[in-house]
Amino acid sequence: MLLLTKHDIENIFSMKNAIDSDKTAFKLFSQNKSVVPLRTNIDIPKLSGQSLFMPAYVEDIDSIGIKIVSVFPKNVENGMPSVPAKMILMDGKTGDVCCIMDGTYLTQLRTGAGSGAATDVLAVKDAKKGALIGTGGQAECQLEAMLTVRNLDSVKIFDMNLERAQEFCTKMSEKFAKFGTEISVAKTTQEAIENADIITTVTTSKMPVIDGKFVKKGAHINAVGSYTPVMQEIDEYTIKNANKVFVDSKDAVLSESGDLIIPINKGIIDKSRIDGEIGEVLLGMIEGRKNDNEITIYKTVGIAVMDVVTAYDIYNCALKMHMGTVIEL
Amino acid sequence: MLLLTKHDIENIFSMKNAIDSDKTAFKLFSQNKSVVPLRTNIDIPKLSGQSLFMPAYVEDIDSIGIKIVSVFPKNVENGMPSVPAKMILMDGKTGDVCCIMDGTYLTQLRTGAGSGAATDVLAVKDAKKGALIGTGGQAECQLEAMLTVRNLDSVKIFDMNLERAQEFCTKMSEKFAKFGTEISVAKTTQEAIENADIITTVTTSKMPVIDGKFVKKGAHINAVGSYTPVMQEIDEYTIKNANKVFVDSKDAVLSESGDLIIPINKGIIDKSRIDGEIGEVLLGMIEGRKNDNEITIYKTVGIAVMDVVTAYDIYNCALKMHMGTVIEL
Repeated sequence: MLLLTKHDIENIFSMKNAIDSDKTAFKLFSQNKSVVPLRTNIDIPKLSGQSLFMPAYVEDIDSIGIKIVSVFPKNVENGMPSVPAKMILMDGKTGDVCCIMDGTYLTQLRTGAGSGAATDVLAVKDAKKGALIGTGGQAECQLEAMLTVRNLDSVKIFDMNLERAQEFCTKMSEKFAKFGTEISVAKTTQEAIENADIITTVTTSKMPVIDGKFVKKGAHINAVGSYTPVMQEIDEYTIKNANKVFVDSKDAVLSESGDLIIPINKGIIDKSRIDGEIGEVLLGMIEGRKNDNEITIYKTVGIAVMDVVTAYDIYNCALKMHMGTVIEL
Repeated sequence: MLLLTKHDIENIFSMKNAIDSDKTAFKLFSQNKSVVPLRTNIDIPKLSGQSLFMPAYVEDIDSIGIKIVSVFPKNVENGMPSVPAKMILMDGKTGDVCCIMDGTYLTQLRTGAGSGAATDVLAVKDAKKGALIGTGGQAECQLEAMLTVRNLDSVKIFDMNLERAQEFCTKMSEKFAKFGTEISVAKTTQEAIENADIITTVTTSKMPVIDGKFVKKGAHINAVGSYTPVMQEIDEYTIKNANKVFVDSKDAVLSESGDLIIPINKGIIDKSRIDGEIGEVLLGMIEGRKNDNEITIYKTVGIAVMDVVTAYDIYNCALKMHMGTVIEL
């Protein structure tokens, strides 16, 4: 059995690798080539916590996996991660556990890479300006994904907490210096998104953080927050008037994301607002962006197939490079 | 995070410890002090395999766990275990994975200990003769449990494969020499069970292996096989005429075990044949054995709470004794 820490994964698996994994995952998912049973949730009432168990099987790559994610808000009081996670990977040829890896970083990586895959296929080819709303734990991989798929001159960063935004910019400017992209703080979401060719929102907001008036023609939006029905990042004007809306999973987005559920419940749009799954675009089954004037949206809540395919590719990479810690159990 | 192999567990955790853990588990279960979501099964058609995910939460001991068991019959062709298993234990105070241990041995241990707990509370106090039907992977722990809770003069072992029974006897006579019990082969099930005070059946049989005519008054039977509706170990005469039938979980046994389902479907008994759960007996909520003439049955299919409580006790034992392998992940 192989153990892979965040550090191991960072050393062996690039954002570009992860984007390739997610493209494979999206295609397999949209071809119904994956088995994703319902997630099991166990409530932990005395700590206002919850543990989530998310298994999936992908026959094409002989891989079974289960991501175990706990949401324990009170951990923060003790200086511990509030959402600890581990990924357990099983060899689909033997059924035995073959690898355990850091699930928190895997989630950040595969979620960022999901936006990277969507941006790669949907954003205008000569995108020059990026915008990132939110600087929490998922922000770094979202930024890296954007920088990886397009050659951007500048990315504007907004966060409600200006100080945190500034810290993030300083850290990211150093970390991603190789891209030669100017990374700077925006004082308002308007300043961040106006003129942006690529916009990524990754917040826990319950109020829209995007004002459609300021979204320019030709922009592509990755809407990554809003993973519960009461959360909303994209305003109703934008969701109604965008030229194309693609999602990772129709069923998942329609049952989990306020970005769609809230305007549907208000009668502003209906389910047909979703043009299709990103996997269908990648497969060439449906058209993505038609021209450089269209506004496109990729809405994601995350699917277990992304975890299994990405974890499987990381595991194989580690085996080839003799990285990680081998243990007998 | 702590890793515990079979060898680690054997070194730190005795059958007596495991019986105590199962008694706690049974009591918590029968008090509804556990959360056991439905098991998730993923079929792996191309290998005629199946992976099972069994999570549970026990608030009283702040422990969450999931046992991952794969049933891959074709593994045998490659010299690998056909039922590989791992137990993943999480700290109920933080939600993070704290321990991963050998799930195959944990299953053998907690299943044997379950019979041990039932035998301790249900068998006649001065039981002298034991019988064990079946010498597969679960047999050793079943035998050890029997030897642990009663001071037996002899145990007769039966297996359809006489040679395998002989090998098992030789190995067990050496391993369990400290008990001073004569362990010998019986050529027929009749020879094994007649005169036995304690009978344990642990086979995958679809035909009864117990003929009630040969079960003596005062005997206690642990019926451990028959974990699917088509499997049957206990004949209908015995199940109908035993004085008491106890189970680990009423719901589980009635939905999974042919020992009850087959005679119920034939109209020979109905659900009220079950006198109660072993946890209720241990809690003193219902009466167990009334006198030394009653025939008692403990029918088990296994419950996830046994895994979580036993794994939690093993983990704490290992922490105290600084055993196992500590890893950072």
